[in-house]
Amino acid sequence: MASDSRERMVRSAAVLLREHGYAGTGFRDVIAHSEAPWGSIYHHFPGGKAQLAEEAVRYAGDFVAQLIEHSPPDDPVASLRGFIAVWRAGLEQSDFRAGCPVVAVATEAPADQPALGEAAAHAFASWERALAATLRRAGVTTARARRLATITVAAIEGAIVLCRARRTTRPLDDVGRELELAIRDALPGG
Amino acid sequence: MASDSRERMVRSAAVLLREHGYAGTGFRDVIAHSEAPWGSIYHHFPGGKAQLAEEAVRYAGDFVAQLIEHSPPDDPVASLRGFIAVWRAGLEQSDFRAGCPVVAVATEAPADQPALGEAAAHAFASWERALAATLRRAGVTTARARRLATITVAAIEGAIVLCRARRTTRPLDDVGRELELAIRDALPGG
Repeated sequence: MASDSRERMVRSAAVLLREHGYAGTGFRDVIAHSEAPWGSIYHHFPGGKAQLAEEAVRYAGDFVAQLIEHSPPDDPVASLRGFIAVWRAGLEQSDFRAGCPVVAVATEAPADQPALGEAAAHAFASWERALAATLRRAGVTTARARRLATITVAAIEGAIVLCRARRTTRPLDDVGRELELAIRDALPGG
Repeated sequence: MASDSRERMVRSAAVLLREHGYAGTGFRDVIAHSEAPWGSIYHHFPGGKAQLAEEAVRYAGDFVAQLIEHSPPDDPVASLRGFIAVWRAGLEQSDFRAGCPVVAVATEAPADQPALGEAAAHAFASWERALAATLRRAGVTTARARRLATITVAAIEGAIVLCRARRTTRPLDDVGRELELAIRDALPGG
């Protein structure tokens, strides 16, 4: 049961980071959202909020990386669409309040908490690796696959910020269309 | 002189938002950075921190839009390179601490301050309009110019987040290279 409540707190932290950011998410909010007993958060996260946020970034990073890895292994357009769909659903279901928890931590991480920036970098890199692997299996050269994976992660993360500010999924749709063109162009015979 | 100190506070707020985000930037920090007299900040910004941040977003938005508008009028690759160069310089000069003040406000804006999200949306849109105009003048169709402008802003903003987390400008370089390919592909005879 203890590990259940620990996992619930990590998941709650990821959800709250998406909507309220790092500064805007406190232990109190995570307790309320996860319905975990108050004292347990100090027991499970002796490193405080930074430790909880780091684990939430790792959780969200693994979740999205697995989603990409479980898409058809040699269809990069399908991987792209799956990657976009998860963010679009989050935006629509939250009335454009939910962004990406990894971006929240990457942009707000205090300078004296370098582990947070490293956890964010690790999550982004895992998505890039998964996307690049799909591109290579479809015949794209290694160097181009790496660059396309980077622009995919960057452009979709940026589009999520634009979508929240503009309260529409149009930036994500436009970015998806351009990324599809770039991927098709890079495929053998494209 | 009063308006000088007002302008200095807006510029200082923009600088501090880049490094410390919305939650991490207080009136006290802006006073210290701008060397403005303490009482004057309440005089100039009766709407508090939200008003100051909104003006800082507008200031940064106009600054970058003008930079794009003043690049060669029908050379979209030059506009892209100028847009990238300003962010790369900020990253390098700050040892990867400085991101984009508009993204900071867009991602952290509290739900009860909708004017902040609107100011961010306005800034992003002004950059997209300036980039799209350059693309159209170079012969790109209106619809494609709009989409390319959106992916340019989104991908560069996302790349800045990746660069800060990874402490290298490589994501920005990779994204720039892919965006150049996309622009050349969209040009007449491309």
